[in-house]
Amino acid sequence: MLAPESYAAGRWVAPGDRARSILGPVEGKEIARAGGTDLDFQAMIDWAVGTGGPELRAMTFHERAKMLKALATYLNERKEELYAINPLTGATRRDGGVDIDGGIGTMFVFASKGRREMPDGHVYLDGAVEQLSKGGSFLGQHIAVPLRGVAVHINAFNFPVWGMLEKLAPTLLAGMPAIVKPATQTCYLTEACFRMMIESGLLPEGAVQLVIGGTGDLLDRLGPQDVVSFTGSADTAGKLRSNPNLLRRSVRFHAEQDSLNASILGPDATPGTPEFDLFVKEAANEMTTKAGQKCTATRRMIVPEAQIDAVAEALAERLAKTTVGRPDAEGVRMGALASADQKRDVLEKVAAFAGEVERVYGDPDQFELIDAPAEGAYLPPMLFRCPDPDSASAVHAIEAFGPVSTLLPYRDLPHAAALANRGEGSLVASVITHDPAVAREITLEAAAWHGRLYFNDRTSMKESTGHGSPLPHMVHGGPGRAGGGEELGGVRGVLHYMQRTAVQGSPDILTAIGGQWVRGAEERTGPTHPFQRTFTEIEIGETIHTEAREVTLDDIEHFAAFTGDTFYAHMDEEAAKANPFFPGRVAHGYLLISFAAGLFVQPDPGPVLANTGLNALSFQKPVSPGDKVKVRLTAKRKTRRTDEYGEVAWDVAMTNQDGEQVAQYELLTMVAYTR
Amino acid sequence: MLAPESYAAGRWVAPGDRARSILGPVEGKEIARAGGTDLDFQAMIDWAVGTGGPELRAMTFHERAKMLKALATYLNERKEELYAINPLTGATRRDGGVDIDGGIGTMFVFASKGRREMPDGHVYLDGAVEQLSKGGSFLGQHIAVPLRGVAVHINAFNFPVWGMLEKLAPTLLAGMPAIVKPATQTCYLTEACFRMMIESGLLPEGAVQLVIGGTGDLLDRLGPQDVVSFTGSADTAGKLRSNPNLLRRSVRFHAEQDSLNASILGPDATPGTPEFDLFVKEAANEMTTKAGQKCTATRRMIVPEAQIDAVAEALAERLAKTTVGRPDAEGVRMGALASADQKRDVLEKVAAFAGEVERVYGDPDQFELIDAPAEGAYLPPMLFRCPDPDSASAVHAIEAFGPVSTLLPYRDLPHAAALANRGEGSLVASVITHDPAVAREITLEAAAWHGRLYFNDRTSMKESTGHGSPLPHMVHGGPGRAGGGEELGGVRGVLHYMQRTAVQGSPDILTAIGGQWVRGAEERTGPTHPFQRTFTEIEIGETIHTEAREVTLDDIEHFAAFTGDTFYAHMDEEAAKANPFFPGRVAHGYLLISFAAGLFVQPDPGPVLANTGLNALSFQKPVSPGDKVKVRLTAKRKTRRTDEYGEVAWDVAMTNQDGEQVAQYELLTMVAYTR
Repeated sequence: MLAPESYAAGRWVAPGDRARSILGPVEGKEIARAGGTDLDFQAMIDWAVGTGGPELRAMTFHERAKMLKALATYLNERKEELYAINPLTGATRRDGGVDIDGGIGTMFVFASKGRREMPDGHVYLDGAVEQLSKGGSFLGQHIAVPLRGVAVHINAFNFPVWGMLEKLAPTLLAGMPAIVKPATQTCYLTEACFRMMIESGLLPEGAVQLVIGGTGDLLDRLGPQDVVSFTGSADTAGKLRSNPNLLRRSVRFHAEQDSLNASILGPDATPGTPEFDLFVKEAANEMTTKAGQKCTATRRMIVPEAQIDAVAEALAERLAKTTVGRPDAEGVRMGALASADQKRDVLEKVAAFAGEVERVYGDPDQFELIDAPAEGAYLPPMLFRCPDPDSASAVHAIEAFGPVSTLLPYRDLPHAAALANRGEGSLVASVITHDPAVAREITLEAAAWHGRLYFNDRTSMKESTGHGSPLPHMVHGGPGRAGGGEELGGVRGVLHYMQRTAVQGSPDILTAIGGQWVRGAEERTGPTHPFQRTFTEIEIGETIHTEAREVTLDDIEHFAAFTGDTFYAHMDEEAAKANPFFPGRVAHGYLLISFAAGLFVQPDPGPVLANTGLNALSFQKPVSPGDKVKVRLTAKRKTRRTDEYGEVAWDVAMTNQDGEQVAQYELLTMVAYTR
Repeated sequence: MLAPESYAAGRWVAPGDRARSILGPVEGKEIARAGGTDLDFQAMIDWAVGTGGPELRAMTFHERAKMLKALATYLNERKEELYAINPLTGATRRDGGVDIDGGIGTMFVFASKGRREMPDGHVYLDGAVEQLSKGGSFLGQHIAVPLRGVAVHINAFNFPVWGMLEKLAPTLLAGMPAIVKPATQTCYLTEACFRMMIESGLLPEGAVQLVIGGTGDLLDRLGPQDVVSFTGSADTAGKLRSNPNLLRRSVRFHAEQDSLNASILGPDATPGTPEFDLFVKEAANEMTTKAGQKCTATRRMIVPEAQIDAVAEALAERLAKTTVGRPDAEGVRMGALASADQKRDVLEKVAAFAGEVERVYGDPDQFELIDAPAEGAYLPPMLFRCPDPDSASAVHAIEAFGPVSTLLPYRDLPHAAALANRGEGSLVASVITHDPAVAREITLEAAAWHGRLYFNDRTSMKESTGHGSPLPHMVHGGPGRAGGGEELGGVRGVLHYMQRTAVQGSPDILTAIGGQWVRGAEERTGPTHPFQRTFTEIEIGETIHTEAREVTLDDIEHFAAFTGDTFYAHMDEEAAKANPFFPGRVAHGYLLISFAAGLFVQPDPGPVLANTGLNALSFQKPVSPGDKVKVRLTAKRKTRRTDEYGEVAWDVAMTNQDGEQVAQYELLTMVAYTR
């Protein structure tokens, strides 16, 4: 008998007398007891806000990213312990891969994005500096900082591990502590993974807590710096988001709800094409993975009228190969639903389609079971067909959260998009087509209704990740019926746990706040040439001004001959004058930035190892023969990259003899920490 | 008598029998009758969604931006008609500037940002391409498209023109139609401006509608593709956001609520510093502009304990110069509040401070009025002082929406930030300091509680825009008490009226959807060299592959001597080998991109006029003497810029003799539409 424990204010809390009995779906017998204790929710909030928050905020984004990487590595090493429990939930090993490896993989991606796309500091810069004044003494910059409350994560029963980790990764990277509340039915698997995180010792005190059982008055105690992130049914989301305290105090509420996701077969994807076979394969996968219990699963397959018979036939044939039974038994492709309640619910929902659909495949009263008792929560894949999808309503509104899907015929692309949109908002719609014009037309008609559009064809099918897989890189969530929320999507998902603040002030103030030199801010003079200074020594704002160099006509002609760039603007006075941008022959832009390097480079070996790139180069004024150019080079931004060196970005401005800026760019270099 | 009309489904609707009488605040007499008609809200929604939406979506972002610019220009030419009505609202001409010129200016900024920061197409690309596969055949890209419903704008009484235009500009730029509902008290001024927009003939049918009077069951009729944007009191926002239909259907609801905004005087800003005087000046301005009826006005002035007497004295002195009276009378600095009700409400709120504050300046029962009857809604500026801000509660929670502010003493910076945060979420907090370290500390402690942080000092004070001014470039809104919403902030504000969708697919599919060439997508061959093709002729994906060129040691030495870039990695074999990045002497990065230009440039005059810049240049692999490099140049993106030419961005990749990529970048050129 499993007895998953809560983790509240640093202490494990065992199930109480009023614990709920959890019946396993595999055999229909009790497998665990959970909850039934009175947790002190205010103490949990206080521990998160008073201890976890400050500890996490004291770390930089890179430090938190490294912590996530270490945590994911730790979980990865112990994951077989989770796979051992996984079948109790009804899931096969393959289903478990989506949940367990999927969750760990998500944490790795956030760790990597945190290092690559966020600063090694405490303030995230959101977008470019805004020029709010002509003279440049008053500027704007959007920043994001961690919220100072606690994130409450309310997760669904279908992905006990991924559901926790995909929310924890962006939350912890943001610098916010979390209280995780898994669905009770599968909470023992969540708890096993959560316990590993605590045992890893990698997380600061107060960073994470776990609620097994009900949330009591937890939501009534939240305030404006807290976040509720919910995944689950539309009904439960509706109840939670109506909580008067959440509404009154503007508590952020993100909902990700299962929805009536659609998959469209392109008109080009006729039988015999790779796309036709791909559609059937993905469709069968969506119906049977996790026994169809995925918020992203395809509930409506929208296919050309002319192909509906062929699709029905091919898909039924494929589904017939889906063996159902005990999830860890040899040869079983589809396990049990999460519970007997869930099975009952699916059958009720399917009954509601009556009058709108015909059965194509799958009889819940008669199907083969491998090594499993009839008391288990098993169902066969069930495929339906809706002859008149325009007048139908149940198939567009009622979700049977199991291995269930319906075929709908369409006349033309606008009709296909309109049918997809009848779901009133979904997490994902997919289109299997090899025709980019079809992809574009569906996008323009349907993108506003779907959080994700997934296209697949012969080109991408070997590497594609599947209609139903939310990826950490891409936003997950959708409008309307899908909850109107967003999660994941790389840094976008991290920002859900941060406050975006518009900052206005002088260049010096913005430099101090953002940790990145802003044009117009103080220029410091270092003791030696900056290329002779280590990463650690270089100070933000450290600047050199070079000597001036005259650009002669000889230089231009020589450069043209040498590089082969004999563009007329450099070579032909008359033709250059006719060009709207040039007063006559002008220097090559590449000549200018090459001369710039000649002016600012210090040739000797030193900590500055290499020029790795250049950003946002803009040529602002032509340089004519006889002009004299000089360069300002200022240390703008420092980012640690490896144990030996980091990236220093330099702000470079080139001016002419009249003080007019002729070019500007950001120069990237790798610089060693030590000599 | 003014009789402002609704504009519903293309028809003007005059006030009905049950119209409400609007009493003017200047003399306390009836000045208008408004509303009292039964509008057909479903017909309004249908007109917006059925006519306005499709018309707007048929335009590109640039076309809509041009429309906004024309509209702003038109309103600007007729703005004196609005200034003529403005005093009826109680506002002075200077107040009117914030409202009328401020609103028109906001529209100009969105027009400009639409041209500069959004594409000349129908799909906005949000962020970079995500590499979802090793081979690059399956990629991700976030896009945004206009929502397909209607935006309902519910505006406050204090800025009848700005309130409408600041919401309309991003909505129309997004491609979404709007229904505007102004507060009834000042709706006649909104209507006058709205009428001009219709008379301009610049907007498509169905793009905008106006509701004078109540919104009836409008909100009950909205769905997942609609948006409600509200500005006003926390009470009203609370009622609206609890609407069961909005909650059930996940209708987007943005609230921008007046809040207990704070201004902090830095510890460095002692009497005699420019910052001390600046603080007093901004504080007086915030109290008296629009008679303090601004959602961003400073309600709490947080000053060092040691300076509170000095601030009180200086501010009282300044406030004593604020003449109050008839808004259009000569010499009047502060006009009336918006209504007698508003005056009554302010006095009630002030009474609630009793026991927590002492009066420093301003007696509502005894103050001088210029050219105005006592029946008008006049108040003097009222300054209070709260000796014990830690135990006080009313001053942190109750907003007197008028010329009212309270001084609070602080001990140290954490205390100052904590007091600012006691407002439980605000639109803006300002800090007057010349010390960047103070700015940084306050930011880290307080940014999470405030939508905007405004810093000002001697450097920026000449160009700064004021604590209380939301700018179109910067996000406006704040957490908690401020409503938890966001508006404005450039493109961020436009995205509130669009759906962000994660798109996954092959490079060809993403290219077709985004209108921008994605690496790995089809390369087309044009009939001639692309530099000889006009902007119009160049097709996305048009590609040339150049010949290879060997990079010799002579080239490297020659380039070093010519440019002066004698960095050891190019000149000294031993030293270069010791560098972790280089196998020995290598070519300069600038030599490579100069040779690249030599390889791909077509020298003759033609439509490609100039190389204007370069983005995201990355040197990926060193090039050694003897290596042979060649270049692929592909037309990536086209953006119209003027009537004669547009920008073409080219994707450039340089590879070596082994097919390894050594550098990549985006090249920017200006290209003429015609020969």
